[in-house]
Amino acid sequence: MWTRKHLLGLEDLTAEEITAILDQAAVFKSESLSGDSKLDLLAGTVVANLFFEPSTRTRTSFSLAAKRLSADTIDFTAASSSLSKGETFIDTALNLQAMGASLVVVRHKTPGAPHLLARRVDAGVLNAGDGTHEHPTQALLDIFTIREKRGTLEGLTVTLVGDILHSRVARSNIWGLKKLGARVVVCGPSTLIPPRIEELGVEVSHRLDDVIAEADCVNLLRIQFERQRGAFFPSIREYTQFFGMNAERLRNAKPDVMILAPGPINRGVELTPEVADGPHSVILEQVTNGLAIRMACLFLLQQRQEAGDPQ
Amino acid sequence: MWTRKHLLGLEDLTAEEITAILDQAAVFKSESLSGDSKLDLLAGTVVANLFFEPSTRTRTSFSLAAKRLSADTIDFTAASSSLSKGETFIDTALNLQAMGASLVVVRHKTPGAPHLLARRVDAGVLNAGDGTHEHPTQALLDIFTIREKRGTLEGLTVTLVGDILHSRVARSNIWGLKKLGARVVVCGPSTLIPPRIEELGVEVSHRLDDVIAEADCVNLLRIQFERQRGAFFPSIREYTQFFGMNAERLRNAKPDVMILAPGPINRGVELTPEVADGPHSVILEQVTNGLAIRMACLFLLQQRQEAGDPQ
Amino acid sequence: MWTRKHLLGLEDLTAEEITAILDQAAVFKSESLSGDSKLDLLAGTVVANLFFEPSTRTRTSFSLAAKRLSADTIDFTAASSSLSKGETFIDTALNLQAMGASLVVVRHKTPGAPHLLARRVDAGVLNAGDGTHEHPTQALLDIFTIREKRGTLEGLTVTLVGDILHSRVARSNIWGLKKLGARVVVCGPSTLIPPRIEELGVEVSHRLDDVIAEADCVNLLRIQFERQRGAFFPSIREYTQFFGMNAERLRNAKPDVMILAPGPINRGVELTPEVADGPHSVILEQVTNGLAIRMACLFLLQQRQEAGDPQ
Repeated sequence: MWTRKHLLGLEDLTAEEITAILDQAAVFKSESLSGDSKLDLLAGTVVANLFFEPSTRTRTSFSLAAKRLSADTIDFTAASSSLSKGETFIDTALNLQAMGASLVVVRHKTPGAPHLLARRVDAGVLNAGDGTHEHPTQALLDIFTIREKRGTLEGLTVTLVGDILHSRVARSNIWGLKKLGARVVVCGPSTLIPPRIEELGVEVSHRLDDVIAEADCVNLLRIQFERQRGAFFPSIREYTQFFGMNAERLRNAKPDVMILAPGPINRGVELTPEVADGPHSVILEQVTNGLAIRMACLFLLQQRQEAGDPQ
Repeated sequence: MWTRKHLLGLEDLTAEEITAILDQAAVFKSESLSGDSKLDLLAGTVVANLFFEPSTRTRTSFSLAAKRLSADTIDFTAASSSLSKGETFIDTALNLQAMGASLVVVRHKTPGAPHLLARRVDAGVLNAGDGTHEHPTQALLDIFTIREKRGTLEGLTVTLVGDILHSRVARSNIWGLKKLGARVVVCGPSTLIPPRIEELGVEVSHRLDDVIAEADCVNLLRIQFERQRGAFFPSIREYTQFFGMNAERLRNAKPDVMILAPGPINRGVELTPEVADGPHSVILEQVTNGLAIRMACLFLLQQRQEAGDPQ
Repeated sequence: MWTRKHLLGLEDLTAEEITAILDQAAVFKSESLSGDSKLDLLAGTVVANLFFEPSTRTRTSFSLAAKRLSADTIDFTAASSSLSKGETFIDTALNLQAMGASLVVVRHKTPGAPHLLARRVDAGVLNAGDGTHEHPTQALLDIFTIREKRGTLEGLTVTLVGDILHSRVARSNIWGLKKLGARVVVCGPSTLIPPRIEELGVEVSHRLDDVIAEADCVNLLRIQFERQRGAFFPSIREYTQFFGMNAERLRNAKPDVMILAPGPINRGVELTPEVADGPHSVILEQVTNGLAIRMACLFLLQQRQEAGDPQ
């Protein structure tokens, strides 16, 4: 049963709460995404998308999820917003709420920005990525995709590859995967693995070739060129040589290994086109599942909004 | 009864016409904004938003008002428009009309641009702000908010504070408030009060402390840093010292004084956060009421469109 | 009967296929655009607009056409897209498809980009302009507008004036007009007429005054200042003198000559305001018809999508 007013991160959630979202997403996937019918569960609801970092797929996915449930949407991006006129982030959200938004989807470069917002608004807040902190719906769709294929996360080994240090996707995945009973391995150059990450219950590797054989799922994180200020690895070429997924590496993996990537992928960097478009790749299914996950999150939070106020 | 084809400004309207809009907005506020139901009064109608100046809340408010009435919307902003390809303002509007828009919401930096448009298109034109001239829906929502709390404007003293010279909000408020029987005081640095403004029937003050005690409503206009070319006052600090609303000044006001602000507010400039978020502030209610006002304006003009042509 | 999965250009279509689109557009024009009712033929369908070149009217027209049929839309522009994050054009489209888009409207500066896309996605692809190659819906709306007034294209002389070399509108018009039995004359400075264009079955003129008398329809192409790198004609003034349409030239034309222009028009360049706003001009009717044409194209391709897969 879902009782939370906000979805801020997977660190806070119990296994039962995560499962409630996954189950609801499964219902929406079979009910709505298969056919051409829209659901009217959020008819009359206003969903505000408040994006202070550029985003294509996450914003589009939330927007489309809202529309599939018949909600109205307001799109705010940093460029178009009154922030340039000196208004604060919180005031912008309060204004959207005053216009009737009962759900606010927020992406912000500052870790904790959605939490700050949640303390100030009555609307339900959905974290669509806060700096390097969490990106819960991305992790939920990754987990949904694995659970859909394998039935359970229990006992699976999921290997997160790449820039763990800057990745909110990694952080949310670690919380979610561990809670659902998976074994998590993080694998990347030592400069891109945060110190003491083992305390989160994960294992660390610096060579993909060492851990590829035991992985049930490999999640190839984006090299976020736009987020890296310094030089965390010598060259793209060297990164690809040690951590890129290619046909040769795939031959050392389990025959049913799943290849995930949050996208947008850099073809030839995190993985070769051959792998991206190959039979192990579930990259496009992740995108489809993202829509179902966001529908589920919007729906569960809106139900909670309507149930009334006690936090 | 509403018989006008366009809403260009409050200068042209009678008290009865203003009241017709306020009454319709009250109906929409109770019918639609309270519940989660959309009205289908404008189903099939196309509303074009034609914004040649940046805007967040006004554009969003009009857009959402249209959606609450089930209209389809087309959003045009200067950046995205064909104006960069050399097309004229009027041609753009004629094209939107040819695509089926029966209502055109226009914001333009040139005073009179909506009036020019109204003479050239068959669609109903709504002025969403023309330079320093008028911004009728903002004034209507200010007036609506006061009337909702006090029942009437008759006999109330409304004090407009700040940059009266550059403010289309002030100008529209003055017309509307006077027509509905309020006493209007304008208060600001002498450089920001237009000469001979007394001819509009308002009183002038240059010290907020002189007039705060007798105000029933104080409307704190934005310092529009982006609109001021010259130096109209020595410093923000000095402006705030003489014209900013703060807790100390509020103690000299009537116990039930209403604090309005068109927003986006500059916290610490026109008013302190304490006042903005305090019990006298109706700033967020203004935003909510803005939606109802814009629904009313769109609805009344569309009804007029359907009734047929004679101007 | 329409059996194609994609609409890539008029070169590929038969006269029967073109007529099927025109007939469907005529139905939509009388059913939907006249009244205030939306059709629900595409309810639940997701249409993605993928624009890699700036566009106002074409994007708006497709978007509104989709809404009039009750589809949901996703708008992608180069600026907002993940392309800046390194994702390929095809990956972007595959992602939109994974989010449920069954129709993709694409504008791209590279000739053939929509064809490339059509080979890689399951969704139906509509070419909204590919470089200097084709712009089929623009030609279809031009042809629709002529057919609506004259009943047939058979035997009419249609004169395309201006920059034939860079014009995808000209290219699509030539294919479509010839297939429907019109005589086509292209008229422009010799620098702006492609060599060997006669092989397409058109006649060439370099003086509008030589051919104006025999034209039933004159289509005044835009001088695309933004597309021309070199100096193809000495000056705007000279262009206008030889190829601009004005009242004097109009006096030498047939009394029922139709003046078309794809817009956005440069008033005083391709034609004088007097002609643009005069009784022979059908420029705004073209815009209205464009909506009907795009509704027809979206509808026919979606029907084909639902009918199943064999290419």
